[in-house]
Amino acid sequence: MLTSRSMIRTLTLASALAIAATVTTAAGAQTGTPTRRATATTLPPATYKPEFGTMWTFDAPPLEYWRKTYNFTPDQRWLDHVRLASVRLPGCSASFVSSRGLVMTNHHCARECTASSSPSDSNYINTGFAAKTLAEEKKCEGLYVDQLQSIENVTSRVRAAITGRTPAEKAGQRSTIINTIQTECAQATQLTCQVVSLYQGGIYSLYRYRRFSDLRLVMAPEGDIAFFGGDPDNFTFPRYDLDLTLLRVYENNQPFAPTNFLKWSANGAAENELVFVVGNPGSTGRLNTLAQMEYLRDVSYPATLGNYKRSLGIYRELAKTDTASIRRYQNNVFSIENSQKAVIGYRVGLVDTMSMATKRAFEREFRQRIAADPRLAAEYGATWDAIGTAQRELATFNPQLRYQSFSGGSTLLTMAAQLVRIPAEGAKPSADRLAAYRGAALENLKTQLGRDVPIDIPFERLALAAQFRAAQAELSPSDPFLRLALAGRSPDEAARALVSGTRLGDAAFRKSLVDGGAGAIASSTDPLIVFARGVDPLNRTQTLRADKLNAIITANSEKIGQALYAAYGTALPPDATFTLRISDGIVKGFPMNGTIAPYKTTFYGLYARSAEFDNKDPFKLPPRWVERRNNLDLATPFNFVSTNDIIGGNSGSPVINRNGEVVGLIFDGNIESLPNRFLFTSEVARSVSVHSKGITESLRKVYDGGRIADELEGR
Amino acid sequence: MLTSRSMIRTLTLASALAIAATVTTAAGAQTGTPTRRATATTLPPATYKPEFGTMWTFDAPPLEYWRKTYNFTPDQRWLDHVRLASVRLPGCSASFVSSRGLVMTNHHCARECTASSSPSDSNYINTGFAAKTLAEEKKCEGLYVDQLQSIENVTSRVRAAITGRTPAEKAGQRSTIINTIQTECAQATQLTCQVVSLYQGGIYSLYRYRRFSDLRLVMAPEGDIAFFGGDPDNFTFPRYDLDLTLLRVYENNQPFAPTNFLKWSANGAAENELVFVVGNPGSTGRLNTLAQMEYLRDVSYPATLGNYKRSLGIYRELAKTDTASIRRYQNNVFSIENSQKAVIGYRVGLVDTMSMATKRAFEREFRQRIAADPRLAAEYGATWDAIGTAQRELATFNPQLRYQSFSGGSTLLTMAAQLVRIPAEGAKPSADRLAAYRGAALENLKTQLGRDVPIDIPFERLALAAQFRAAQAELSPSDPFLRLALAGRSPDEAARALVSGTRLGDAAFRKSLVDGGAGAIASSTDPLIVFARGVDPLNRTQTLRADKLNAIITANSEKIGQALYAAYGTALPPDATFTLRISDGIVKGFPMNGTIAPYKTTFYGLYARSAEFDNKDPFKLPPRWVERRNNLDLATPFNFVSTNDIIGGNSGSPVINRNGEVVGLIFDGNIESLPNRFLFTSEVARSVSVHSKGITESLRKVYDGGRIADELEGR
Repeated sequence: MLTSRSMIRTLTLASALAIAATVTTAAGAQTGTPTRRATATTLPPATYKPEFGTMWTFDAPPLEYWRKTYNFTPDQRWLDHVRLASVRLPGCSASFVSSRGLVMTNHHCARECTASSSPSDSNYINTGFAAKTLAEEKKCEGLYVDQLQSIENVTSRVRAAITGRTPAEKAGQRSTIINTIQTECAQATQLTCQVVSLYQGGIYSLYRYRRFSDLRLVMAPEGDIAFFGGDPDNFTFPRYDLDLTLLRVYENNQPFAPTNFLKWSANGAAENELVFVVGNPGSTGRLNTLAQMEYLRDVSYPATLGNYKRSLGIYRELAKTDTASIRRYQNNVFSIENSQKAVIGYRVGLVDTMSMATKRAFEREFRQRIAADPRLAAEYGATWDAIGTAQRELATFNPQLRYQSFSGGSTLLTMAAQLVRIPAEGAKPSADRLAAYRGAALENLKTQLGRDVPIDIPFERLALAAQFRAAQAELSPSDPFLRLALAGRSPDEAARALVSGTRLGDAAFRKSLVDGGAGAIASSTDPLIVFARGVDPLNRTQTLRADKLNAIITANSEKIGQALYAAYGTALPPDATFTLRISDGIVKGFPMNGTIAPYKTTFYGLYARSAEFDNKDPFKLPPRWVERRNNLDLATPFNFVSTNDIIGGNSGSPVINRNGEVVGLIFDGNIESLPNRFLFTSEVARSVSVHSKGITESLRKVYDGGRIADELEGR
Repeated sequence: MLTSRSMIRTLTLASALAIAATVTTAAGAQTGTPTRRATATTLPPATYKPEFGTMWTFDAPPLEYWRKTYNFTPDQRWLDHVRLASVRLPGCSASFVSSRGLVMTNHHCARECTASSSPSDSNYINTGFAAKTLAEEKKCEGLYVDQLQSIENVTSRVRAAITGRTPAEKAGQRSTIINTIQTECAQATQLTCQVVSLYQGGIYSLYRYRRFSDLRLVMAPEGDIAFFGGDPDNFTFPRYDLDLTLLRVYENNQPFAPTNFLKWSANGAAENELVFVVGNPGSTGRLNTLAQMEYLRDVSYPATLGNYKRSLGIYRELAKTDTASIRRYQNNVFSIENSQKAVIGYRVGLVDTMSMATKRAFEREFRQRIAADPRLAAEYGATWDAIGTAQRELATFNPQLRYQSFSGGSTLLTMAAQLVRIPAEGAKPSADRLAAYRGAALENLKTQLGRDVPIDIPFERLALAAQFRAAQAELSPSDPFLRLALAGRSPDEAARALVSGTRLGDAAFRKSLVDGGAGAIASSTDPLIVFARGVDPLNRTQTLRADKLNAIITANSEKIGQALYAAYGTALPPDATFTLRISDGIVKGFPMNGTIAPYKTTFYGLYARSAEFDNKDPFKLPPRWVERRNNLDLATPFNFVSTNDIIGGNSGSPVINRNGEVVGLIFDGNIESLPNRFLFTSEVARSVSVHSKGITESLRKVYDGGRIADELEGR
């Protein structure tokens, strides 16, 4: 799924950032007349670069590219219709799919609603749910969807307000003008308004949304069929998931009747068919410079993968010694393996010499375009080198910084660092403190530290030892962190001594240190406090240095985005921003592991995959699917793949055909699509969807959901 | 399958070589008492190296390794029983599986019998066949199986006879003594006798076989289900093939009752079970030195892959211009893609730095062991460098040699070369000629050249142009071949001029050149004859040079084998020699494409794969399988994978459990197993088998073969 456990954090972040910029919710609507943006300079016409993918905004649809590629020429009505039939829900995408306000999204996008609307003695996540009547539909507390009404380019107004010199001044002014625009808009229109920075500040667009806040659960299948294949099958295809939840929008306690909703296709997705995905991709990094990609490839990702590997080693070690907890550790292992799968996938494109050659060629051309225009050259010419220099300097002390950051997963060490920092940070004005110690957070932290929490001593020992062993392998023997950590001992000895010597596992002891303030910390002889006290100043120095370099990179990244828009205009779609995009693609199998992966799977395949694993978890079928097998036409298409360009946030997006009819429901990408985060390709990368026929067949034959299927099919 | 179209040549060669050494067929049997061989020197005990795989000979079963690894301790009776229950058929393996002489092998191993025993108005390859009674069983003309009776170490006798100095003398003496031993054996025992060189001459073993020559076809499924998934699914798993044929051995027109046959397991292969494959692997290259592997990786295989790529380019080009022939070219494309898949697969292990590091480490240890013993050091110490030097010299002129070899697929160019060479070779004594012109071959060639054959002119032009273009890219502009080929023209122009200028497409013209002898060739102005006349001497010079270097490599490779046996004895199994081996392994899934491939597939999966491709070829099901679907328990295991060590020649091998019962039938390896040709690993490499339950379920429910299933199950 596109918001796997491991990705939820990223995704939630993406949506949180997006949503943080919105101001108020209000009633009333205003339709938009999207206008096509043009290139901002007089450079020769820019051509489309496939590596930038196809996440097009609705105010700059690539009409000419679609016409040439597919002989498809939608009119403005078509575009307005699919835009208004699409909605965004927190972290995910969705769409209106009936005249009575049915909203289709993924099971994993509405999990909280499904769980919380369950009766007290059972859980719809386990049992599944299909309302037999409107009256049975269950209110989803707190859930809402946003419908994009209009887009307005407000770049000149934002730019005009940014007159400061320093990055801090500029950031403040930008934030102020954005807030002003959003507030004015909300007051004037009673809509939810959000200023979106596209092309990293290349343009600013005001997005106006109508919000619907009464959503009810209509149908959700069992978790076991929604996420059939679990972590192993996540990010893969062939796939067999009914990752579906149907909600309904209500207004005044009555089903809402949307003017624009997507009709259901009679046959669903067909092989080689042109299809569109309309949804809200969260975040891509295609505007990253080569230097940034190289840093990810050579520094960040290897460090992350090193952490995963160490954690996996620890959990596997623990599972060996503590057989009772194998199940618990096993979940951690699966979760980390899934994250590892994602990061390895992202990195695949960055280590691929062909892909990087494409990137290098693009950057050369891009820089030449900028150099060719004296005004652009003056403004942006130095940007790439500025980023490259900062990235290279960051790389020189990245290992030191990482090890000094109290990372590695030890709870005791984290607590030690917090205890050491509380008095120091508490003494400063809130705004000057490290982020985690500002305002109310400081008091919360103090309270938390005084509470009892279970400490997994074997884990603590292994985590510290693994961290020290990694530091020993990566840092010079004279590194100050390493000297403080080991003090002449082996990593195992040092970890054992710290964990058995510390009293930080005792809540009362921790409370005494919190209450004792700076004096108690300064005079403590607890070995972990002593250690944290020594590391703290090292960490502060290096963090400050890194912050400065990152500020340079951020400021110049914005310039890159502006330069890109200046040089290419809307010929290249902007990076994903968790706002509405439309992506074109083809329903199509792909070469896989020496053979061909089909364009679709069927219910046969579902039963096959379950039987192949002797119906063991996570390939266990819900009882209903076992009992009702003979009801189903097993050859019905269940999932399918297409070349559309999606990423986390697109979960729940409808897949539609030329007629704007629903042919499927996006829920994941294959593993080959992970490198698309940075460089889009469509040879083997595929989006994975539930087939519309699989949805109606399941509703009718397995869930007694004829009422709902009829409504979808407009019967 | 293990003898894919592309591999048949290799495999047939392996079996041909093996069988060429046999002498006569005779009646009478003699049981063997295999004796364990010991290490030939006093070096410290050698330990098993997993990269050498598990193709154990029956006279050196790794009893201690099996005991330690699996707690499995078969007695000599067990070993004798499975050896005698196993038989070899030309190019493949098989086994006795009933008390009435049923022999189980792969469909692709008995294809010729199945086709030739069909009635005149249909073909069992298309329709399938299952004899309802003994009387209906169909004689397989010319087919035989060999049962291994005994193995005798004859190394000292062979060695004693080799007293010559030069490689040619030695080879002659070796050939003579081997023939003598085989003839003596055949006369004394009335068995089929074969001296096998193991460890490249490290030891010589006399293998005695009883031959059965009356085989009849009992059951063969349709080709569409035997090779379901066709070329795309070849070398892959998950898989869904009933690659089975059942034959019966007759003696005196009665079913033969073998003393040793494999009983049928009640449940078939289970996950994580220890299983053995007993069969005749054709050829592996694990004894290759690092230098030989590097040559394959850097010179041979890239050249082969270059050829495939050029051929594919030509066929795709032709398919574009000649739509009527797309189907014909499509078959060529599939076939080349399959070969390409195999070669890329073999090369994967050689480009894998981890695998090559293992090889390097082994070679270092191996050389150290040899260096540690003065006698061995004197005998073998210089071997590796001799091979390395020769390989490196071969690499220097490999491109020149390749292009001068009249290769590239042009029929006209091949004919030109033959015409030029016939008078020159015909003038020499037969033994001194190039191999293709010796004895009767010369007259055959002359006759052939005088016959009409269709010439595909567009293909000829593209093939020559592609060849010249590749030569231009790889050779220096002053290369004499290139100058003769292009003579200042572009590759396309040169190819066009040669093909349109030559009269070699005309059989009468060719005949006139054959009849005209040396004079006609010398005075011919036909542009292709002129070209071939120019290239011929270049080719002869380089070929001679290559032959000398290859002789050095061959002689030293034999020494490497002897050194290996001297240093490691039977701790390491010898390379495959198309003789009977027993390989241990575990039934086990594997990580694949981001998820897990299951240990087995089921009939559900068969119907799934067919439905996923809309029942299109090669995923089309035979009518019987469509009609009788509801008869089947779809959850029945169909195919499965295990970590056994197999290669071409193992096709048709039985897979047995600890009790010696049949749990499956080998028919392929997954794509991940291709690198095992050089370095065995079992992380992701798997053997692919038909599951024994899938066989009996198919027989009973699809083929009305209750009689046969009962016989297999001993009912």
